[in-house]
Amino acid sequence: MPKHILILMAMSAEASPLISRLSLTAVAQAPATSSSTFSLPYETYTGSFTNSMSITLLTSGKCATHGVDNVGTLHAGLMTMYALREVQGSDKYDLVLNAGTCGGFISKGCSIGSVCIPEHAAFHDRRITIPGTPFEAYGDGKTHCHTGESGNVTQISSIRESLNYLGGGVTTGDSLDHTAEDMLKMMANGSTVKDMEGAAIAKVCELAGIGYLGVKVVTDLVDGERPAFEEFLENLGTAAKSLEEAVPKILEFLDKEEKAQA
Amino acid sequence: MPKHILILMAMSAEASPLISRLSLTAVAQAPATSSSTFSLPYETYTGSFTNSMSITLLTSGKCATHGVDNVGTLHAGLMTMYALREVQGSDKYDLVLNAGTCGGFISKGCSIGSVCIPEHAAFHDRRITIPGTPFEAYGDGKTHCHTGESGNVTQISSIRESLNYLGGGVTTGDSLDHTAEDMLKMMANGSTVKDMEGAAIAKVCELAGIGYLGVKVVTDLVDGERPAFEEFLENLGTAAKSLEEAVPKILEFLDKEEKAQA
Repeated sequence: MPKHILILMAMSAEASPLISRLSLTAVAQAPATSSSTFSLPYETYTGSFTNSMSITLLTSGKCATHGVDNVGTLHAGLMTMYALREVQGSDKYDLVLNAGTCGGFISKGCSIGSVCIPEHAAFHDRRITIPGTPFEAYGDGKTHCHTGESGNVTQISSIRESLNYLGGGVTTGDSLDHTAEDMLKMMANGSTVKDMEGAAIAKVCELAGIGYLGVKVVTDLVDGERPAFEEFLENLGTAAKSLEEAVPKILEFLDKEEKAQA
Repeated sequence: MPKHILILMAMSAEASPLISRLSLTAVAQAPATSSSTFSLPYETYTGSFTNSMSITLLTSGKCATHGVDNVGTLHAGLMTMYALREVQGSDKYDLVLNAGTCGGFISKGCSIGSVCIPEHAAFHDRRITIPGTPFEAYGDGKTHCHTGESGNVTQISSIRESLNYLGGGVTTGDSLDHTAEDMLKMMANGSTVKDMEGAAIAKVCELAGIGYLGVKVVTDLVDGERPAFEEFLENLGTAAKSLEEAVPKILEFLDKEEKAQA
């Protein structure tokens, strides 16, 4: 059976080069059912990779009020749930691949353009400390990245080592910048990169029992000197090009593994 | 046609007295369709109020990993989307009522036990400042509370004045405490109360074109002297009892208005 990969991306500028490279085509939103009488902003593209792999790619679309991409954890979670419960047809997804840009920690080996395949995901802006309860761990919401139902993380390491990408964790929050409190959590999370969607998508994947594989390209340095937004704007285009290169390499790796196992 | 109210609550301890008071009964999760092959943690209760109003109430259920209630914006958003797109049958919801506990600002007239019917909702922990773009306003995500498709806020004021509840805004974030940066946003948001779900639920309601009505009872004082978790734990039971009183009063108000218009 061909593998079916669900690729989730927050921003259209991040996704456009990859959509062209994979020759994906836009599809209309799943028709409204009797209950789902409102439309969602998420944009869906489909296609295939080589002859053996189906691809469904969603971007989070634009905010109707402000016209910007629907970045952040709320839309990331909603888009993941929409894709997994409504867009999916009889050809079930085998894996969720979340590709996007991120901030990187110099202290963990990142420079602009570095690619990270995180081993785990967690939140850094959900501080819920109620002594004597597990709410703090719930808030941190750490999940392990894996490519199979068994929670096997070996393949994540194989991909990373084979392609010479960074590992460690992705830490997620709803702000482009970070506070001193965020930094404490980010360090405690063992994070190599910081994004605004990863842990939310990973959490919904955990609920659904499907693997989460992140591919994050560094646009700005979290522990560097410059404001995140400056470096982000400067490097967004280059990072999107880098995602266009990295994602097919990963798909090729997964495809070869699949064929070797067959 | 009877009104159908969807009540959304984060914690079972907040919801239990109200579920008993309204004599709601638990219903099994909507059967999985071909695509929705995984179950969600949300708990659904149904019943009626007087003879003319249908009630569907959802709580966010428990985290399978940590055993605590699924508080915060991610599950609030997912639960709202689940309720609106999957639980709803042919009897469409007319309004979403989000009842729960909150922190209150002494500077805005709150004391422990105060009830607030917010006029607007916004986030205080989504700082996305990219000069020259509307990302900052997107992050703040301000939505207006209303009880009808037309975005009419008059009824919100009528309910509040009739029942002598507080107004102003609800400000939402994923932490029980707050940072100095959070406080700046909370003040800018014109907030009377602070919660962990309101703006996320209001945002999904906005996507769906359905009214959002919040009912928030104060358990702790944001600008007081004590840590939020201490006051929260002390006052959670009393606040849940207060919700048990306040929600039926609001339903009665809506029911009378409906009958007066009929």
